[in-house]
Amino acid sequence: MESLKKQVGYASVNYIKDGMTVGLGTGSTAYYMVEKLGQEIKKGNLNITAVTTSKKTAEQAESLGIPLKDLNEVDWIDVTIDGADEIDPQFQGIKGGGGAHLIEKIVASYSNQVIWIVDESKMVNQLGDFPLPLEVIPFGHQKLEKILQEKGYHPETRLTKEGQLFTTDNDNFIIDLHLKNITDPHALAQELSQLPGIVEHGLFLDMVDIVLVGRNGQVETLKAP
Amino acid sequence: MESLKKQVGYASVNYIKDGMTVGLGTGSTAYYMVEKLGQEIKKGNLNITAVTTSKKTAEQAESLGIPLKDLNEVDWIDVTIDGADEIDPQFQGIKGGGGAHLIEKIVASYSNQVIWIVDESKMVNQLGDFPLPLEVIPFGHQKLEKILQEKGYHPETRLTKEGQLFTTDNDNFIIDLHLKNITDPHALAQELSQLPGIVEHGLFLDMVDIVLVGRNGQVETLKAP
Repeated sequence: MESLKKQVGYASVNYIKDGMTVGLGTGSTAYYMVEKLGQEIKKGNLNITAVTTSKKTAEQAESLGIPLKDLNEVDWIDVTIDGADEIDPQFQGIKGGGGAHLIEKIVASYSNQVIWIVDESKMVNQLGDFPLPLEVIPFGHQKLEKILQEKGYHPETRLTKEGQLFTTDNDNFIIDLHLKNITDPHALAQELSQLPGIVEHGLFLDMVDIVLVGRNGQVETLKAP
Repeated sequence: MESLKKQVGYASVNYIKDGMTVGLGTGSTAYYMVEKLGQEIKKGNLNITAVTTSKKTAEQAESLGIPLKDLNEVDWIDVTIDGADEIDPQFQGIKGGGGAHLIEKIVASYSNQVIWIVDESKMVNQLGDFPLPLEVIPFGHQKLEKILQEKGYHPETRLTKEGQLFTTDNDNFIIDLHLKNITDPHALAQELSQLPGIVEHGLFLDMVDIVLVGRNGQVETLKAP
């Protein structure tokens, strides 16, 4: 698994061309993409500007000497490369296992091209086995969890390994919905968007252009319809 | 105007009964409601618990000895009394002139009854003359403003009197949309809810039960259909 993630992460850097503004995703596969990007920049092969999607990725990128800018400072992002937690046959996805999906979604929405890099375990027939993350406002979060419970969405407020409330880079909390089967992602997205207190849900719909999948030691390239 | 606001604010306290859990709004009219509530509690006429919608209201309520609880600590809110910036004939409203609409909307959504208290200048034929506030994530807020500009929504990032970025109680920014005419509030609400980076818009649709309007020195009671 780890070597597949590395293979896919490294391969994705081929999509980054000289002079581009690049969105850098968050997570274990994106980690390798950033690592390889740092190597190419160090070798003098690439001259790019990057926008990061989390404090964690920003720290890694800085340590590798990747030039960073704030999203507000760039005109547009040419390509964003990020991981995903689940991708269905229609190229709809779930992200947010790392708790960074709010910023990841903002960055993706300002990108001309979005590439997801995953190992084959992330390719599913239907979304929902992976818990759907919601970034929520701390104020009233327990009330919101109760509402989601009553809707039958099996919510669970995310905790750290130490049992503390997990806090996002934006000082919000995460509620994970254990849905098992999401039959209509668009309808669910619309419903969740309109619930007060939910800042952003982890459904990434109609957002990805290319998926690179590590499968049987190979990197497969899938283009979204 | 000021005496009308006071009259309406004071009158609204009649809807608060002994033993209730009460949501306390924010703003210049809600200020008088909280003032009067404090007087009634001091006189021993009312024994209630309150949930506040802003740091400002919390400070006022505390100074008056109104017992406060966090939203997470109460089962449900019996009645929330709040101001509004515009109300149309269908009882749809705009709130957020004070920048507190995110928490105001969360509190309203957990309330059995919502009462708005306004002077007659807030009653309009169509929403939109008052700028529609959006609470937005600081990350990429200038990009979001550009997108809203391209949509023709005439956005303006809110500044303080001192020319600094206005910051909400949740450390977000406010973008005001100068729309003039909102012909379909529900469609606009849905569109804005789905834009990444917008935490909450100031459209309060199908949320209010009773509106108390100060008009010609009288308090008129309007019931939503």
